[in-house]
Amino acid sequence: MNIEDEIQNIEKRTDYDRILEEFGISRIDKLLPKIGRENIFFRRGVVFAHRDFNKIVDRAEQNKKFAIISGRGPSSDLHYGHFILFELIRFIQEKYNCDFFLPLSDDEKYVFRKVDSIGETYKLSLENAVDIFALGFKPDNVHAYISSITPRIQYLALSFSVNQTYNAIKAALGLTGEENVGTVFYSCIQAAHILHPTTDHNLPVVVPVGLDQDVFIRLTRDIARKRKITSPTSLYIRFLKGLTGKPMSSSAPESCVFLSDDEKTIKRKIMNALTGGRSTVKEQQKLGANSDVCTIYDWFEKYFVKDDKEMSEIRKGCKDGELICGLDCKPRLIEMILNHQKQHNNRKKEVIKNLEKYFDHEIDLSVLNREDDSF
Amino acid sequence: MNIEDEIQNIEKRTDYDRILEEFGISRIDKLLPKIGRENIFFRRGVVFAHRDFNKIVDRAEQNKKFAIISGRGPSSDLHYGHFILFELIRFIQEKYNCDFFLPLSDDEKYVFRKVDSIGETYKLSLENAVDIFALGFKPDNVHAYISSITPRIQYLALSFSVNQTYNAIKAALGLTGEENVGTVFYSCIQAAHILHPTTDHNLPVVVPVGLDQDVFIRLTRDIARKRKITSPTSLYIRFLKGLTGKPMSSSAPESCVFLSDDEKTIKRKIMNALTGGRSTVKEQQKLGANSDVCTIYDWFEKYFVKDDKEMSEIRKGCKDGELICGLDCKPRLIEMILNHQKQHNNRKKEVIKNLEKYFDHEIDLSVLNREDDSF
Repeated sequence: MNIEDEIQNIEKRTDYDRILEEFGISRIDKLLPKIGRENIFFRRGVVFAHRDFNKIVDRAEQNKKFAIISGRGPSSDLHYGHFILFELIRFIQEKYNCDFFLPLSDDEKYVFRKVDSIGETYKLSLENAVDIFALGFKPDNVHAYISSITPRIQYLALSFSVNQTYNAIKAALGLTGEENVGTVFYSCIQAAHILHPTTDHNLPVVVPVGLDQDVFIRLTRDIARKRKITSPTSLYIRFLKGLTGKPMSSSAPESCVFLSDDEKTIKRKIMNALTGGRSTVKEQQKLGANSDVCTIYDWFEKYFVKDDKEMSEIRKGCKDGELICGLDCKPRLIEMILNHQKQHNNRKKEVIKNLEKYFDHEIDLSVLNREDDSF
Repeated sequence: MNIEDEIQNIEKRTDYDRILEEFGISRIDKLLPKIGRENIFFRRGVVFAHRDFNKIVDRAEQNKKFAIISGRGPSSDLHYGHFILFELIRFIQEKYNCDFFLPLSDDEKYVFRKVDSIGETYKLSLENAVDIFALGFKPDNVHAYISSITPRIQYLALSFSVNQTYNAIKAALGLTGEENVGTVFYSCIQAAHILHPTTDHNLPVVVPVGLDQDVFIRLTRDIARKRKITSPTSLYIRFLKGLTGKPMSSSAPESCVFLSDDEKTIKRKIMNALTGGRSTVKEQQKLGANSDVCTIYDWFEKYFVKDDKEMSEIRKGCKDGELICGLDCKPRLIEMILNHQKQHNNRKKEVIKNLEKYFDHEIDLSVLNREDDSF
């Protein structure tokens, strides 16, 4: 089930907190005084819950290091929906000076048959890494690695494989047995990604994820418990709304804006986006629009408009009918995206120059120049 | 089911050849004119069947290279029963100048919970390798490696993992789902052991095994077919009879003679061994004994007595009552084993000097000297 659907389903239930509690997940609210409200993701509820993140914050307050980890299955579809996650990581890294581990999970793409061979995502792995680091990451304290060619990860996965039965994974993921063995074993590889900052660098870990990914956190915590390794903690994120009104998904291109989209495509997608507007300009000027269902408003609030005053002006202008979707808000978001894209591309050049410094293993930079027009 | 039981069960059936044929296995007889009868394993039916080994022989006749591969799960229980396999490999290697790949499958010992951690069999891996190579292997054309620390093997296993479903492995091995995931994934590691001479060195492969191991060959052939890799061929071996009359097994120490057994232990085990002898010497001298059920005779025939004339004299002497089990044959075998052991220990010293040359990766020889009295 999609993350937004899942959250909406859960939020509809009156026993929301009880459900979270069952899984050991708490609302983030109580932690905000400690974390602070300077970051919009925390302030505006994009990060809405956590499991044991208080332990990490307590640790940070004693100047003890920790690690934040998020994987990326290399693919050509990196879009603005993914950026919330990585900008959140950048914020946490800057605030707490923690290490960021970025497994580029080419093995995941392979076992789930998104690609025919493991090697064919090598270039994409480097490209995705460049895009992520161009969000403002410095090479210091970053550990990027391509999973399949990192022997230590495969070794840890093998090591953890004795701590999980097929039946446990089957129950957690709803397998039929007709899946290939690689997808079953991938749970162990993912546990290796999550736990290796702890096993190898003695750093407790926080993993920011969507609520739908929590099953993998639970599987990993199960292994950690059996191995007497400090259990990973987690943060739960709400992602951007899909522009079509349906959940954002790479396989529904009109629902999201890819980093590789050209200006024309971006304009079309945004101009076609679902809003809370009225049928006519006149009607909207008279009655105002509904920001609660508006995807443009959602993108402003969760990502593009960092300033609270600006945000409340947008909210008021929308409600009062002073802002017209197609005349004001959509052109404004288009400009913001194009501007972001331009700055992002500039920062990429700087990242590429130092890309080797971000990686824990040697990389072949020359692939970035081959048959390639994205840089 | 134990190999000897399985063979005996199959041999009892009148449709023996049809069963073998169903699995694509042929008796070795027709191939003997090509292979020759100079080796006792072929001449005396220790190697009794094969799958597609004719293809390897044809290739060898054209001076094309191939690989022979047999794994060894490192443990302290290497015994004379294991030596048939490795001496057969040595013979084939000498005759055909093929490459011998020896994966030391520490990962197997680990996932099947014979040891608590992967690393703890490192020293045993080297020790087992020394014992195997001391059978007369030269470092040339030998590729030994410790499986878990050979990234290429773990990478190939991951690669092959998409070509087998859990259900297929479940059906082949009779799994319940309560096994740990490592044991399921191990099929893919084993396929990597078997196929990597073909994928990485372009050498077709022959695997000598007991008939009970054929299921793993079939699983690997299934992967090879899907990947369009040349399928592994196989040779089927009868192992030594257990001294107790029951199948030989490391977990029944009196059934076998370990390389580490001292003289006193060897004498006890052999003197207690099951023979086809009569209740009294007098009776035996009068009626003769039954070599068909005699474990001592079996050891002579399959391994220790290479000379056919000597063997037929033993057979005759046994039948005619001229040889008395406890007075003639058992002391003779004890002497042979002690002599073999002595020579073997001498050859080990030479092997240790050159051990690094046998391995495809760096090894830490210093572990062989730590808290160690076996060398």
